[in-house]
Amino acid sequence: MPLYTAPVKDTQFILSAVLNLNQYASLPGFTDATPDTIAAILEAGGRFAAEVLAPLNLPGDIEGCTRHPDGRVTTPKGFPDAYNQFVSQGWGTLTAAPEYGGQGLPHVLGMAVTEYFSSANMAFAMYPGLAEGAQSAIAAVGTPEQMAHWLPPMVAGRWTGTMNLTEPHCGTDLGLIRTRAAQNPDGTHAITGTKIFISAGEHDLAENIVHLVLAKTEGAPDTVKGISLFIVPKFLVNPDGSLGPRNHVSCGSLEHKMGIHANSTCVMNYDAATGYLLGEEMKGLKAMFTMMNAARLGVGAQGLAIAEAAYQNAAAYAKDRRQGRALTGPADPDASADPIIVHPDVRHMLMRGKAFIEAARALILWGALQVDLAHKAATPEERETADDLISLLTPVIKAYGTDKGLETAILSQQVLGGHGYIREWGLEQFVRDARIAQIYEGTNGIQAMDLVGRKLAQNGGRALRTWLAQVHATLADAPEIPLKTSLTKSLADLEAATLWLMQNALTNPNNAGSAATSYLNLMGHVALGHMWLLITKASTAALAAGTDDPSFHEAKLTTARYFAEQFLPETRMLLVRIKAGSETLMAIPVEAF
Amino acid sequence: MPLYTAPVKDTQFILSAVLNLNQYASLPGFTDATPDTIAAILEAGGRFAAEVLAPLNLPGDIEGCTRHPDGRVTTPKGFPDAYNQFVSQGWGTLTAAPEYGGQGLPHVLGMAVTEYFSSANMAFAMYPGLAEGAQSAIAAVGTPEQMAHWLPPMVAGRWTGTMNLTEPHCGTDLGLIRTRAAQNPDGTHAITGTKIFISAGEHDLAENIVHLVLAKTEGAPDTVKGISLFIVPKFLVNPDGSLGPRNHVSCGSLEHKMGIHANSTCVMNYDAATGYLLGEEMKGLKAMFTMMNAARLGVGAQGLAIAEAAYQNAAAYAKDRRQGRALTGPADPDASADPIIVHPDVRHMLMRGKAFIEAARALILWGALQVDLAHKAATPEERETADDLISLLTPVIKAYGTDKGLETAILSQQVLGGHGYIREWGLEQFVRDARIAQIYEGTNGIQAMDLVGRKLAQNGGRALRTWLAQVHATLADAPEIPLKTSLTKSLADLEAATLWLMQNALTNPNNAGSAATSYLNLMGHVALGHMWLLITKASTAALAAGTDDPSFHEAKLTTARYFAEQFLPETRMLLVRIKAGSETLMAIPVEAF
Repeated sequence: MPLYTAPVKDTQFILSAVLNLNQYASLPGFTDATPDTIAAILEAGGRFAAEVLAPLNLPGDIEGCTRHPDGRVTTPKGFPDAYNQFVSQGWGTLTAAPEYGGQGLPHVLGMAVTEYFSSANMAFAMYPGLAEGAQSAIAAVGTPEQMAHWLPPMVAGRWTGTMNLTEPHCGTDLGLIRTRAAQNPDGTHAITGTKIFISAGEHDLAENIVHLVLAKTEGAPDTVKGISLFIVPKFLVNPDGSLGPRNHVSCGSLEHKMGIHANSTCVMNYDAATGYLLGEEMKGLKAMFTMMNAARLGVGAQGLAIAEAAYQNAAAYAKDRRQGRALTGPADPDASADPIIVHPDVRHMLMRGKAFIEAARALILWGALQVDLAHKAATPEERETADDLISLLTPVIKAYGTDKGLETAILSQQVLGGHGYIREWGLEQFVRDARIAQIYEGTNGIQAMDLVGRKLAQNGGRALRTWLAQVHATLADAPEIPLKTSLTKSLADLEAATLWLMQNALTNPNNAGSAATSYLNLMGHVALGHMWLLITKASTAALAAGTDDPSFHEAKLTTARYFAEQFLPETRMLLVRIKAGSETLMAIPVEAF
Repeated sequence: MPLYTAPVKDTQFILSAVLNLNQYASLPGFTDATPDTIAAILEAGGRFAAEVLAPLNLPGDIEGCTRHPDGRVTTPKGFPDAYNQFVSQGWGTLTAAPEYGGQGLPHVLGMAVTEYFSSANMAFAMYPGLAEGAQSAIAAVGTPEQMAHWLPPMVAGRWTGTMNLTEPHCGTDLGLIRTRAAQNPDGTHAITGTKIFISAGEHDLAENIVHLVLAKTEGAPDTVKGISLFIVPKFLVNPDGSLGPRNHVSCGSLEHKMGIHANSTCVMNYDAATGYLLGEEMKGLKAMFTMMNAARLGVGAQGLAIAEAAYQNAAAYAKDRRQGRALTGPADPDASADPIIVHPDVRHMLMRGKAFIEAARALILWGALQVDLAHKAATPEERETADDLISLLTPVIKAYGTDKGLETAILSQQVLGGHGYIREWGLEQFVRDARIAQIYEGTNGIQAMDLVGRKLAQNGGRALRTWLAQVHATLADAPEIPLKTSLTKSLADLEAATLWLMQNALTNPNNAGSAATSYLNLMGHVALGHMWLLITKASTAALAAGTDDPSFHEAKLTTARYFAEQFLPETRMLLVRIKAGSETLMAIPVEAF
């Protein structure tokens, strides 16, 4: 059974010393997030993750979800009870708006706790995670009546939610969807079609499920411009909020998946199910993307979360397992062998995880903070800047975060040797679970295209300029450490890659497509390097101030140096790859594959 | 259900045009391997793989092996019948010595067919694969009587074999094993202990199983120097070769694994089981390594094999699945969308696979050829050179081959998007199956240490000098193409890394340990680049000679250029990482992990 302890100390360090959260104390929601409140929430969330969710992770993977002949789906043993505890402890209400029963706390705090839940049990955390996504779409584009009707029971956790986009023949290209919405005489719509890969589509955790479904209305163009978004509840809801009859939506089957077995991934059949238009007709994709952007940040956090869980188990194993001797002579001569953490190659596997995880946590919390600031910052300029920054970095956090999340899970599994391949140790589950995060909410290739094809050029490149200026400013402020030298070079590589794109993408769009993933990775390295520089600054200050925990901060400085030595050299290679262009790539005829 | 077609044409091209097999026609075994025989064997092997083994791959993964209360283990439905066909078609006899019933054909031909079998069904191919490994150990160190007694039924496929090294507390560090061998009055030994992770340890495919077991004799030193190797059959064998009573060895349980579900991975209990010393007492590790080195080449081939199978499915999907439009405008305006192979990012995922696979096939067949030449070449010098080369490259082929094998499986899975995560499509199985190859037969970290800590320095660096001279010679002979320029730089990076190791590893062995994996990858890139240069040479000649299949050879030239553009830039990064040394890596105290 894998172990897990929430990294509360590291989260607190990032929130207080790296992001300086107290500077926002006057903003709405932040007022209530005093250091004591933050500490209490992180401690309690960490405890819930470690004590309630983590013990269900391996059994939940083995048992999986079950679809019964009548179409009901039951989650693994212990999940309904854990969900009840999740609800009764108020974890679903943390960041929701007070008018609908939420606590109105900052998103950045919610993200910190969500990481713990996903580390402990990613399949479980997806149920409330999708519910929160559905809430955010209703809150963004619903009418006041819709918000008042649907949000309170969702915030309270009595109802969950889903996103229904993909159909058997289309996922990425939503213009091709065939699900239809025919208007009923009472103004509602009859939704008919089949959706696949619907996470949490049917289960036994909540009284009702609020499906958000993309469909085309009658006469709408058969492209993305004809898509509308509908609320389609599992049970119809009476005007007084009580549950009415079953709607004509059902789970046709469960997918057999590589991982996240304890989350029900459903084929959903809509058979003239009653739906309610959410937002404007034929603006469904825009509404769905509001939800998707928040979700993508959350998926990036899943990459981090699984990496953290896998790393913890690998580190514990490496300290405990004894094989061979240190290359420099026995480290523990009285024992028959040394713990394998003495071996440089084992250390590399752990250090790559550590160097990713600690800066990724900072980057993701920084990202969640931008979401808060985009809504709550004092001035329109600050709100615009925050929105620019998170819009630019969301695809990076999603794709880079999940790619490195899988890499960390694989390296951690490797530390355990043969035991890493055996179910009981839990590492192989982390790898299987982590793998989905590179695929869903838009594959990582789509993220790269979003970054290069859309986000870079938006508003004349304003977001990129803003972000680059921040990185330059942090560099200018930094002492002459190896990380500064390396990050300066890597930032120059990123700027050279950007210039190359400007000069070569318009003449041949395939150059942009060819460069996209390498460019995203290049930006990911710089973004993490930037975080390591901010962490270094905070830890250097703490050491200078005579912290009572010098080893914590010294390890940060060393890990930052490791990042500079082992990660940042990759940016030059990525630049070379980008500059190779698309000619060779596109030269081979289709038949030759 | 995933599809598979054996790449017979590519194998033939490598054997005939890249490796020029006909130059060895006068050597033993090669005489019989006429072009017609080779073609017939490849065709028949490819058909057996595609028609018999591939259809059992997904069902075998789902069903897995079953251990019954009486300790019997049954393989999935269809496996015993497929194994009978394997035996009756003579696939197990291909390269075995004629004196024991084998066909005595070159190892390079056996390797070509083994690739097909592993692509189609890796879990199945492991049963005869392990049997062949056991045969090779008996053939290498057994007495003439032992060979005559054990080999004929093994070659005939009536008996299979296993390797028993790992115990619960030790895998890599075999000096720690606790299994004991007490001498019986009749000269046999009583073997007592527990072995874990024993592939094909118990099953229903063959009449008998010949376990090769590492154990310590009484009074032997409690280190690697005290280890002996024993033959411990499942059923004792009468002098006339008929089966006697059941020996005291049994499968205690099956491991629950990430993949290769259809191969039985057993905990084996030896309870004073009768064993026969194989080779000299206390020289067991050396005997086992004879077997391991052949096995490691085979494991590298598994990386290639899974990559090929995954790539084929990804390429087919990318040509078929329609989503979105080419960035340069609709490629198929009459359809509602273009096939996704028009997208540069999708092409990168396929091209990375293709650029690895085709050169890896050449490298692995080249490696298998060296094994033949080490035994059969005309002069002692040629035999020594071949032995040097395969000894040097074996850890590279094993580790680089399986790392890139997993990468290709993951990229291929990614091409399918959500469908890649679903069992029915088969891609997720390829990822799970490929993962073990990085772990077993010595983890890839151990391969890197074997390369840097042992193989480089052996005989004063003779093997490395020989190999580098061959790469230099191929380069000198090559026309001025981009691949020549890139490979020249990468070779210089490898030589710089080697020099750095010579200057820094003796003063601090941790520098070697820290550099090992990066160094192995650097050598892997150069080795594949070398193969691409040889392939380029062969294809250029074919085009100049007016081949009737120009598109096959043009695709080779383009893929070689892709390798130069997208793979080789990595060598500089690896050199930078190596030169960073081990100081930062080792600086963090154990408690900080």
